Amino acid sequence: MVEISAAAAPLTPDRNGRGVFPGGIGTDGSGARIQPYHKELVMTVSRKIRESIERSSWIRKMFEEGNERKARYGAENVFDFSLGNPNLEPPPAFRQVLIKVAQDALPGCHGYMPNAGFPETRQAVADYLNTFNPPRVTADDIVMTSGAGGALNVVLKAILNPGEEVIIPSPYFVEYNNYLENHQGVPRPVPTKADFSLDCDAISDTITEKTRAVLIDSPNNPTGKVYGETELKELAGVLTHHSRRLGEPIYLVSDEPYRKIVYDGVTVPGIFNVYPESFMVTSFSKDLSLAGERIGYAAVNPDMSDREEVRGGLVLCNRILGYVNAPAIMQRVIPHLLRESVDISLYRHKRDLLCEGLAASGYDFVKPQGAFYVFPRTPLPDDAEFVAALREENILTVPGSGFAGPGHMRIAYCVPDETIEKSLPGFERVMKRYRK
Amino acid sequence: MVEISAAAAPLTPDRNGRGVFPGGIGTDGSGARIQPYHKELVMTVSRKIRESIERSSWIRKMFEEGNERKARYGAENVFDFSLGNPNLEPPPAFRQVLIKVAQDALPGCHGYMPNAGFPETRQAVADYLNTFNPPRVTADDIVMTSGAGGALNVVLKAILNPGEEVIIPSPYFVEYNNYLENHQGVPRPVPTKADFSLDCDAISDTITEKTRAVLIDSPNNPTGKVYGETELKELAGVLTHHSRRLGEPIYLVSDEPYRKIVYDGVTVPGIFNVYPESFMVTSFSKDLSLAGERIGYAAVNPDMSDREEVRGGLVLCNRILGYVNAPAIMQRVIPHLLRESVDISLYRHKRDLLCEGLAASGYDFVKPQGAFYVFPRTPLPDDAEFVAALREENILTVPGSGFAGPGHMRIAYCVPDETIEKSLPGFERVMKRYRK
Repeated sequence: MVEISAAAAPLTPDRNGRGVFPGGIGTDGSGARIQPYHKELVMTVSRKIRESIERSSWIRKMFEEGNERKARYGAENVFDFSLGNPNLEPPPAFRQVLIKVAQDALPGCHGYMPNAGFPETRQAVADYLNTFNPPRVTADDIVMTSGAGGALNVVLKAILNPGEEVIIPSPYFVEYNNYLENHQGVPRPVPTKADFSLDCDAISDTITEKTRAVLIDSPNNPTGKVYGETELKELAGVLTHHSRRLGEPIYLVSDEPYRKIVYDGVTVPGIFNVYPESFMVTSFSKDLSLAGERIGYAAVNPDMSDREEVRGGLVLCNRILGYVNAPAIMQRVIPHLLRESVDISLYRHKRDLLCEGLAASGYDFVKPQGAFYVFPRTPLPDDAEFVAALREENILTVPGSGFAGPGHMRIAYCVPDETIEKSLPGFERVMKRYRK
Repeated sequence: MVEISAAAAPLTPDRNGRGVFPGGIGTDGSGARIQPYHKELVMTVSRKIRESIERSSWIRKMFEEGNERKARYGAENVFDFSLGNPNLEPPPAFRQVLIKVAQDALPGCHGYMPNAGFPETRQAVADYLNTFNPPRVTADDIVMTSGAGGALNVVLKAILNPGEEVIIPSPYFVEYNNYLENHQGVPRPVPTKADFSLDCDAISDTITEKTRAVLIDSPNNPTGKVYGETELKELAGVLTHHSRRLGEPIYLVSDEPYRKIVYDGVTVPGIFNVYPESFMVTSFSKDLSLAGERIGYAAVNPDMSDREEVRGGLVLCNRILGYVNAPAIMQRVIPHLLRESVDISLYRHKRDLLCEGLAASGYDFVKPQGAFYVFPRTPLPDDAEFVAALREENILTVPGSGFAGPGHMRIAYCVPDETIEKSLPGFERVMKRYRK
């Protein structure tokens, strides 16, 4: 812990005559503060967290520059496409159910329940999953969690030994890196094809005896890609082959918070149909616009090897990670809303508005099949430079490098239609300047 | 990952004639399942999680035996003192506030907010903390969390480097061990004195350059002890001395979910008065009986060295651990209830009922000053044997060994008065049998 020991240094009196350590300690024993530590010399936060803070300082800087622009030009004149925060309110049915649940003071309904969640909630989720999976999912296969972020951490903690690797098709939501590091796992990004579909040969080439899982996200953040049944079956074949070769299962973890946000008749295949050693994780953050309520779940494929131990592992991890259980009130709300969603046609309209505008200005992109992101190529390799140029037009986007997809940028179109419409001339001007 | 490699073993046909690996893999490539893995040979959950599941199997066994007894004798004839789950409902004011908040559909109120929480909520918490601390706590010092379990994980992740040690006065809530292991920290239990007060000399002797923090819990689970200002100041003196010696702050983390559950005029000193390098973590699980809602907070002492970096670390950890933020709806509820609690006199009555009964039967215990636990000595060293004897009387308690306090047992008296009254003859019979 001690990077630079000051133990041998002499005490020097401070201006009140008390002994003070050089770069040293904060109280005189009575609890009164003397002086702060020197950041360079001592640990306050851990080394890893200090590095993370420094690494993410560019995000904060970007965020602050955006805020400065909003202050200077007025929020309505800054076009903020940087955050994946749904701009639609939860559907009307949500409010009715919430008020009813709030009024319904069942004994103990705000207290502890089994760490996996209320049995009725888990049964309702299982019934819903059985509408697009082999109808064998039971309440015991479901662990209610603090959103998809909670579900992913629970699954990763349950399966990862230190140093084991998780393959992630890139570009991807880089928060996955943090989730892996929480449990001493190692991300192994494998680039997708030009249309953002899975490159199963490249995945196969990356599998080693350290590979514990493949983590996919469909519909994808940041690309909007939906993986079809054919490519998922090809992936399952690769994983089955290597699992046999290595004598252990390689898991498939499918993160699906955008499952219901799809367009043009596209559907997301049920992963449990495709590969037995699979988990599904999801939340109600996007399809019901409940991101702040932290409600989601992890589901274990009923065909998984030794599913009982794995389920026990998930329940244990939900507890010991400090989540304990998913928030009780939302567990009572969501069984009534499993087949509901916000009006997806509103997102489709935003997608079309943006994509038509970008195409007219010469942007090169794959039209998203789902989620509310588009991930165009930047016309120069330095995506940060192009994003900075857009910012000069008061258009806020995120460099693709932040998603392990350099040479691109992410535009989150979960914003008012007017924001899209008013931003298009700026998009066009910047493209004109850089286009060869 | 591979503990026993089967890669060189020959394929043997299964009864369908397909090649199957010995102890091997689950699909035939089309996704159909062949046979489960052999648990002894391959990893499903990680090694650590498998060990944890096995370690905690005695708890499950105890729990199952309790359930069997309830099924056999009727739940009303089994006296379950094993769980710290408040039996009182939230105060009436909670229901009124919850309904109002549920009806009040502010735009975005269920969506993402800053990872630290709604600014108004954090300000209300700061104002409350300033009623028993130096009045310098600001909204920026507060991070709203998923209960105290979430708060502890956030603080520990923010400060711990791998292998660093946290001193914990024992007996203690052993879930702390899991929380430390999540972040590669190492627990260093230090026994308290006979009356469960802090042994500051023993703590001082245990501090090394690996010591990162001391973690206290007052009122204490499992003992009901409240640390007084004198012993806390002595502890602060020890930590100040060693922090100076080592040139780095040793943090004090104070876990206070039972702060409002105190008896006989006892009060819990504000830790920010006592030691600058301190965190307070707490929840509304016990004093408002909201354990299932996962709402609490971590507070940084406004006098802490480099508090800005530490606060940034907490916010980052709240995000990257997958909590993201505390549940939004409860963040809007609790500002109205910071000065509320369940009726503490009901818990005091339960304490007195139980303590008088135990004393009359010759049990040896320190009368708890707070929380809803009593931690008597068992009249024989093998606490598990004594707990098993009580179970024969349909009285369910937990061996002190489960709290790093062997030779004791924990009785959680957050149960109906009738449970206490009806259990006392059984407590007496078992004591008579074992008393020398």
